[in-house]
Amino acid sequence: MTVFTCPAPIGNRDTVLLGHGSGGRLSAELLREVFLPILANPVLCRLEDQATVEINGVRLAFTTDSFVVKPLFFPGGDIGSLSVNGTVNDLAMGGAKPLFLSSAFILEEGFAIDDLRRITASMAQAAERAGVAIVTGDTKVVEKGSGDGVYINTTGIGLVRDGLNLSAGGARPGDAVILSGAIGDHGICILTRREGLELDTAIESDTAPLHSLVDAILSVSTGVRAMRDPTRGGLASTLNEIAAQSGVGIRVEEQAIPVHDTVRGACELLGLDPLYVANEGKLVAIVAAEDADAVVAAMRTDSLGRDAGIIGHITERDPGMVTMRTAFGTTRIVDMLAGDQLPRIC
Amino acid sequence: MTVFTCPAPIGNRDTVLLGHGSGGRLSAELLREVFLPILANPVLCRLEDQATVEINGVRLAFTTDSFVVKPLFFPGGDIGSLSVNGTVNDLAMGGAKPLFLSSAFILEEGFAIDDLRRITASMAQAAERAGVAIVTGDTKVVEKGSGDGVYINTTGIGLVRDGLNLSAGGARPGDAVILSGAIGDHGICILTRREGLELDTAIESDTAPLHSLVDAILSVSTGVRAMRDPTRGGLASTLNEIAAQSGVGIRVEEQAIPVHDTVRGACELLGLDPLYVANEGKLVAIVAAEDADAVVAAMRTDSLGRDAGIIGHITERDPGMVTMRTAFGTTRIVDMLAGDQLPRIC
Repeated sequence: MTVFTCPAPIGNRDTVLLGHGSGGRLSAELLREVFLPILANPVLCRLEDQATVEINGVRLAFTTDSFVVKPLFFPGGDIGSLSVNGTVNDLAMGGAKPLFLSSAFILEEGFAIDDLRRITASMAQAAERAGVAIVTGDTKVVEKGSGDGVYINTTGIGLVRDGLNLSAGGARPGDAVILSGAIGDHGICILTRREGLELDTAIESDTAPLHSLVDAILSVSTGVRAMRDPTRGGLASTLNEIAAQSGVGIRVEEQAIPVHDTVRGACELLGLDPLYVANEGKLVAIVAAEDADAVVAAMRTDSLGRDAGIIGHITERDPGMVTMRTAFGTTRIVDMLAGDQLPRIC
Repeated sequence: MTVFTCPAPIGNRDTVLLGHGSGGRLSAELLREVFLPILANPVLCRLEDQATVEINGVRLAFTTDSFVVKPLFFPGGDIGSLSVNGTVNDLAMGGAKPLFLSSAFILEEGFAIDDLRRITASMAQAAERAGVAIVTGDTKVVEKGSGDGVYINTTGIGLVRDGLNLSAGGARPGDAVILSGAIGDHGICILTRREGLELDTAIESDTAPLHSLVDAILSVSTGVRAMRDPTRGGLASTLNEIAAQSGVGIRVEEQAIPVHDTVRGACELLGLDPLYVANEGKLVAIVAAEDADAVVAAMRTDSLGRDAGIIGHITERDPGMVTMRTAFGTTRIVDMLAGDQLPRIC
């Protein structure tokens, strides 16, 4: 495991680091200093997890993700289910009903056809669960040693609900910050599996499609400002993105953030902070204060939101900053993930 | 260079071969024996280069491609322009106006940031030329030795013209087979560059966006049955796909198929058949006989169709088969690419 801590800005770097794929500060720098200035267009610059585009009056969400997770198979899922759920969730976070997916495989010469079948079957099953169809695809093969078994890109199209305009820039002081459940499961599952660590209790990835949970939320509230699934970079990075894009502060309560005991134990053992560990089947919703209780109640009726709760609120002070009241009653600043706590998590 | 000739069917194979990414027979087998039975849905099974889906009454084309071309930079283009043009063309071949693209990068640790900037700039330029916007993206990083510099996935959405239903299954006996220009440029460009072969005249890739050429075609004819860009697997594989999907024969005239002298020379030197060498900025159109001359004339007004011409016609006899009258007056069967003439061509 490679843990970077204080990387220099990309301006000082000539080459790509693992941390540039972390979803944390280095990823943001790569986006801000390489991709955005060159590709600059208004939709891309909104920096949401999905683009919203309008075609002949129909508003669509459009999102892409490549999956390079290692290992390919892990407790609770595999690269196939992960690749479908990840893209379904990016569509759902934009308030869209996920409809169609593409899937593109980069296979390494020598990869087992049986493993490819198993992964494809897992994709089909995940697509069925999420109510989406995989309608187009592509396969490329690279020489042995130029890949790592299989990389999968999924890209998705969803239909944005009428009148809905969610944005990580939409949080307002007083809004509640709601989290759907315990954090860190996916990251610790991948890490322990990859490093061959034995734990008393096996930790399963939480990979799951969140579209139904989103339906539950939107059915009881018109005061939802933003939704995000805190994947790479963990809850800390997602909250920092919302704080920065909305120009507000975010204040959370450590004791309100659920962490499974096994995950907490593994984090202590490994010197990791669960706030920075990746999740796959969790979401953060920023919701008008008056709707917060109703949203939490609705989320708890969905199996993926059983442990949902209010973990904090949006503040006017400390704009762009996330602070946490710790279990000891002190306050700490929760910064964005600086480097790469754990590469190839998804 | 690896040349496979007579591979066994995938049923006899346990692992992925380079030829499974060739766009020829092995690719078709992988699709038919692994992906289609598991992912089976009606849109995917149409086997077009793009899916056509309907959302709230709007008909969209949706297509994905990953690019693993080696080398990354070559005369006439680079992986960036190739990745934009390739997806633009798959949309255009479906009769759609290309609108929005996603781009997803898999970077290898240690890749030069300057090269990434150069590739991104090339994508931006290609997108502008094609009139599309890159609206969403993703970046992953893999360890040194688990990639090969950069792999790029682009996925695109286009708006299908009203009333248009192009399909590789739509060819009818008597239709004309029209080719937009000389074949083999891209494949020979990549091959000579990769193998360090010196030729008297440098060959440039023909990578280019074909949307304007498609506009020209559709503006003069309502009798267009199908369009395809003959990329991996070359003209031979594309014609075989159309023959198989339409259940018709295709008869072409060798002397009507333009091949640049340098490409012909390189092919003779290397023992390659230009019919199987990849193209990037060429298209094949199957058009009702009565519209064929008008379509060719319209194509010739576009710089990318200057050398357009009728190369053959659709026949009732020999269904599923492509035959060619050679320059010597004999007839030969033009089969699908069997293995992999040239891996990582796009």
